[in-house]
Amino acid sequence: MSELYQQYVTHLQKVADINYSSAVLQWDQEVYMPTKGAHYRAQQLSTLAGYAHELITDKRYEEIIEKLHDDTSKLSPVQCANVLESYRIFKQQKKYTTEFVVALNQCISKSFNAWQQAKQENNFKLFEPHLQELIKFKRQESELLGYEQHPYDAHLNLYETGLKTSFLETIFNQVRQKLVPYIQQLVQKPQPDDNFLFKSYNKDKQWHFGLDVLKQMHYDFESGRQDISTHPFTTSFSANDVRVTTRISEHDLFEMIGSCIHEGGHALYEQGLPADDYGLPSGEYLSLSIHESQSRLWENHVGKSQYFWNHNFKTLRNIFPEQLHDVSERSFYKAINRIKPSLIRTNADELTYHLHVLIRFEIEKDILSGALQAAQLPEVWNEKYKSYLNIDVPSDAKGVLQDVHWSHGSFGYFPTYSLGSFYASQFFHQANKEIPALMHHIQNGDTMPLLMWLRSNIHNHGRTILADELCKNVTGEVLNFNYFLIMQNKIR
Amino acid sequence: MSELYQQYVTHLQKVADINYSSAVLQWDQEVYMPTKGAHYRAQQLSTLAGYAHELITDKRYEEIIEKLHDDTSKLSPVQCANVLESYRIFKQQKKYTTEFVVALNQCISKSFNAWQQAKQENNFKLFEPHLQELIKFKRQESELLGYEQHPYDAHLNLYETGLKTSFLETIFNQVRQKLVPYIQQLVQKPQPDDNFLFKSYNKDKQWHFGLDVLKQMHYDFESGRQDISTHPFTTSFSANDVRVTTRISEHDLFEMIGSCIHEGGHALYEQGLPADDYGLPSGEYLSLSIHESQSRLWENHVGKSQYFWNHNFKTLRNIFPEQLHDVSERSFYKAINRIKPSLIRTNADELTYHLHVLIRFEIEKDILSGALQAAQLPEVWNEKYKSYLNIDVPSDAKGVLQDVHWSHGSFGYFPTYSLGSFYASQFFHQANKEIPALMHHIQNGDTMPLLMWLRSNIHNHGRTILADELCKNVTGEVLNFNYFLIMQNKIR
Repeated sequence: MSELYQQYVTHLQKVADINYSSAVLQWDQEVYMPTKGAHYRAQQLSTLAGYAHELITDKRYEEIIEKLHDDTSKLSPVQCANVLESYRIFKQQKKYTTEFVVALNQCISKSFNAWQQAKQENNFKLFEPHLQELIKFKRQESELLGYEQHPYDAHLNLYETGLKTSFLETIFNQVRQKLVPYIQQLVQKPQPDDNFLFKSYNKDKQWHFGLDVLKQMHYDFESGRQDISTHPFTTSFSANDVRVTTRISEHDLFEMIGSCIHEGGHALYEQGLPADDYGLPSGEYLSLSIHESQSRLWENHVGKSQYFWNHNFKTLRNIFPEQLHDVSERSFYKAINRIKPSLIRTNADELTYHLHVLIRFEIEKDILSGALQAAQLPEVWNEKYKSYLNIDVPSDAKGVLQDVHWSHGSFGYFPTYSLGSFYASQFFHQANKEIPALMHHIQNGDTMPLLMWLRSNIHNHGRTILADELCKNVTGEVLNFNYFLIMQNKIR
Repeated sequence: MSELYQQYVTHLQKVADINYSSAVLQWDQEVYMPTKGAHYRAQQLSTLAGYAHELITDKRYEEIIEKLHDDTSKLSPVQCANVLESYRIFKQQKKYTTEFVVALNQCISKSFNAWQQAKQENNFKLFEPHLQELIKFKRQESELLGYEQHPYDAHLNLYETGLKTSFLETIFNQVRQKLVPYIQQLVQKPQPDDNFLFKSYNKDKQWHFGLDVLKQMHYDFESGRQDISTHPFTTSFSANDVRVTTRISEHDLFEMIGSCIHEGGHALYEQGLPADDYGLPSGEYLSLSIHESQSRLWENHVGKSQYFWNHNFKTLRNIFPEQLHDVSERSFYKAINRIKPSLIRTNADELTYHLHVLIRFEIEKDILSGALQAAQLPEVWNEKYKSYLNIDVPSDAKGVLQDVHWSHGSFGYFPTYSLGSFYASQFFHQANKEIPALMHHIQNGDTMPLLMWLRSNIHNHGRTILADELCKNVTGEVLNFNYFLIMQNKIR
């Protein structure tokens, strides 16, 4: 390894040390921190973030990365991919002026507080002026970062390198044309009974079943652990310390099981990244959509499959004989796959979920183009919920104010959730073709062949290629929405 | 507040943010980190430590602290105390050359590894050359830091500002002259039965009793929490987030109770420091001995008192009726105060403990003066154990190799343990004089009057005065060993 490349690695690992330290403090904040610890914890996190920013914009680092970028001839392919990606990020960072960042952060801080109050008091007017100001900043940010076709592209690119509005248009056109009527047709049919999922289930027994499921998935407990938090999440402090959290409701059995498998999928991805490439792009997750593809693949295609429950239902019924003695494996499988158009995105089933995202995609695009102003959002929101989901929104608190994302200035994040699901279907479809008797293995409780396939096809690559290249390499074609419909058809 | 003082505060708080972040990572490492996370965690801690060092030796900070120190006329008394203490630490830091620090750390790292192996293989020879090298560095460090009378003073001063070898001589002379014969006399007498303490005690029930004890002590669970770790400890991330850990043995009931009260005492001190003085000397603990005085005061004078058990023994017997039905409150009290000379310092009772420290004090002093070489340590150690404790040391692993401290290069730490106990007795003796019916309150389960007294007399002062000044202010005289004997006499 050249001395210059070694300096680059050392510097990036230092940045990673600080960012992962922040992640430990955030994990602790969500799972164990006593309430009064909040004030100084926020200050500690802010100091760490400030130092990480200092390191990223360091002059010596600029020299190193510029020199490496100027002559990549002596680098291995992976080293070259790392340098190109780091260079891209460095150049992106350089486009932000300090004044802009300070003003934006002040605006976000006010905006977030206003959103919290507005949601609590169900009063959009409290949020509106701050959101309008934030939109102004975000439109400036598009100009600052640059884009070829649509100002929204600049923001999409922050979460998903190379993602374009035009590409999302083609995907969401199909959601509109195929998924909307498909759902309208499904909801006409009688729905399976799922009342038994909401009986009383002992939390401690749920917890142990969840751990058992994670073990079945080959989540490595020597490189991670599960804890309880208000909102389930996955976090990582290296590929050797990847932690999941779950939430257990006494009266909602599948909430815990679903979140365990979902977060387990995220965690298997992080545990499968090249551990020695700590801090380098080649050791990092590829993009938000690819991350989400891993959680959704396990959740939707393993955890909600009849094969998985063929292996696990008896165990579950033995744990909860009173609640499940009159429930068949088939009815259980039907119940967990039930669809029901609803008001809140985070509670949505796997099909109607994408209509929630479609609505946000359409709105975000128009916000960034300047076609929509903050004041118009409640009306537009409610119209779209009526049109796509046939739902009357009863209040802004449960409507346009339901998500935190916009108050944080995150525009372009939502679409990656849907892309993740669609990638998941396409990847799983391919895995099924390549792994002999995959579903038979799952039926026998053996998910190792699937994990090995994901490791070699997806996890091992880190961030050395783009999402659409990965998809093409793995499945032979770019993202194709039809696989999502095919896989959903199999379930129903 | 002057602008310059504000800059000083901001800088110190930044340092505190980084040091407390390290503390969170260390806490996590001891209580929840999965095994494979160790490698990168060490790297993360090292990066944080490097940044903290950068900040402490920062040029701009030097200018600020020098200016403030030059003209303290506009500062309040507390501000003045903060500046003087920070200036002292800064000047102390400046005495270290980078070359010395690097070489010392390399030596410590090798020395620690050698000690681990030597202890495991019971082979002092493996450790000896590294220890000898380390002693050389430590003697250099004395010269580098400077001292008035004894080279050991320079090291004592690192843990306990202003502490002198000569002062320790007078204290440990009394340990030699009074405590040694006192113990020799005590061990002649028949010892109380304590076998029942080592029956089988359900761990979960022990845990809940421990939490109850912490609540009785008014440990604030909104500003802290208890977890399990291999070795009990207290750590703090601000005065509003002070955490304790404990260890539970099924076959040793008082191990958990004792450690709960001991760590609880440390934690009450940290929770009682001025929260708004975060990062400043006035918001920090005074010294190691004063910290230890708080844990020992609660452990020895509250938790091992007949009054405390008059209130708590019935509860404990109700929790463990099978094990304790034939044990009286009096026999329980006698058993937990039993003394028994033993080989290992960390297992020692409150009386013989100080002979273990006396031995280490005598050896450390001679090491720093150059009178003792590494090769002589096993023989000297074994002689002293025979002479003071009448114990034959069966192996170096259980003898001179038992403690980690010297392998870390910590010389001067041990004496603060004993000073802590002696201060505890003197403080408690004074509290008893000043708080009407103190023991009666404790007998009623009410420790609030004691806590209030500690808050106003000790906790609230942070690090604005020296330990001996504090002792004089609180008790009217400097540390006086006799109070320890008086208090011990009351127990026996």
